[in-house]
Amino acid sequence: MPNPTAAMLVIGDEILSGRTRDSNMHYLAGELTRHGIDLREVRIVADDRDAIVVALKALSGAYDHVFTCGGIGPTHDDITAEAVADAIGVPISVRDDARAILQAHYDRQGTELNEARLRMARIPDGAALIDNPISAAPGFVLGNVHVMAGVPQIFEAMVASVIPTLTGGSPLYSQSIRIDRGEGDIAGPLSQLADKHPDLTFGSYPFVKDGIYGASVVVRGPDGAAVDAAISELAALFSGDTA
Amino acid sequence: MPNPTAAMLVIGDEILSGRTRDSNMHYLAGELTRHGIDLREVRIVADDRDAIVVALKALSGAYDHVFTCGGIGPTHDDITAEAVADAIGVPISVRDDARAILQAHYDRQGTELNEARLRMARIPDGAALIDNPISAAPGFVLGNVHVMAGVPQIFEAMVASVIPTLTGGSPLYSQSIRIDRGEGDIAGPLSQLADKHPDLTFGSYPFVKDGIYGASVVVRGPDGAAVDAAISELAALFSGDTA
Repeated sequence: MPNPTAAMLVIGDEILSGRTRDSNMHYLAGELTRHGIDLREVRIVADDRDAIVVALKALSGAYDHVFTCGGIGPTHDDITAEAVADAIGVPISVRDDARAILQAHYDRQGTELNEARLRMARIPDGAALIDNPISAAPGFVLGNVHVMAGVPQIFEAMVASVIPTLTGGSPLYSQSIRIDRGEGDIAGPLSQLADKHPDLTFGSYPFVKDGIYGASVVVRGPDGAAVDAAISELAALFSGDTA
Repeated sequence: MPNPTAAMLVIGDEILSGRTRDSNMHYLAGELTRHGIDLREVRIVADDRDAIVVALKALSGAYDHVFTCGGIGPTHDDITAEAVADAIGVPISVRDDARAILQAHYDRQGTELNEARLRMARIPDGAALIDNPISAAPGFVLGNVHVMAGVPQIFEAMVASVIPTLTGGSPLYSQSIRIDRGEGDIAGPLSQLADKHPDLTFGSYPFVKDGIYGASVVVRGPDGAAVDAAISELAALFSGDTA
């Protein structure tokens, strides 16, 4: 059976303007891979309701799971929850369960649950809450869409609580070898090796370092012994130029 | 006149598997912002021809410029040039101008222009070449699609040669202020300020650092004095909690 598929939607003007360098995508990609879920596509859009709705409809229809990050805080530019409700076609309002979580959190802090903070209790009808162990304001799951915070510490905590609830596939076994030769020398033998082992995938990721051209070749497959054997073949083919 | 719009398409299994952390997106985002071109959307897809074609058609139809990175090397998983030709509907073959560039480069190095390296001279009909000052193999522009290498040093060099050829818009003036208060305290006054200054955009980017909740508030607009004034208003509103 093929592995479940996933997409990610990053919502944030600050990424698109170059102000902030995203780290959530790299984190989620690694966690999904370890769990045997194939991340197939990522989209990054601005804090714009129409852009979010269009992307959500496309991704939730095309993949088994969608993960969003960003735009669920208390400020005027936090519009993700409304956009998700709109994309899936359900009403949204302040929900008692989310309000109770926030009320308890701010009571402990001696802080007022003001109108802005109450926005974070707006949850679409039918959504299940995702625990936020750091700052209380919950994420939620609606249909196949998992809506999570953009602050990396909170995003990572939410991912950690969501991933174990998902059915994973077979994690791929992966090994890499660094070959200090131009990709033009690697390409021919690598292509022959790929033809010979249709059960494995071979990726070549070139680099230039201190004026040396090389590539990391990554071999992936469900059978660890087959991956090891292919790496050994590569090491023999390029002996003297591998690391 | 509104600024020109742009999208980016990152092509690479290695980003989606979590093996590699993308840096090209962050670089391009900053360069486009400085040049007054609005990056509106980024998509990341796998080394899969159908996925590349679908994304290219959508993005090149929706935005003024599209920038791709990745998948133009000599190995079997480098399929971007074919996918771009397919998406735009033009033939692709080894072109004499690109072959001459590669031949001269490899002659200087005393390296054979073998069959694999010759793949990098496959350029769609009608495309203009983009210079690669590092490893010779050119990128290309076809319609509104700029096709560039994935290796960051080469990508950045290609961006540097392409950006000055594009008509830019008015660069936005931008200032930020760090407020060491929870976003729930910032949200109300910030929303009022945003209503009062419809010519400016206000973004709030929360963080948690050493147990302190705070946010960077970023104000952007075409008029530097107006941005400065709004930042001063914020500083006064949250005096004692700003940095």
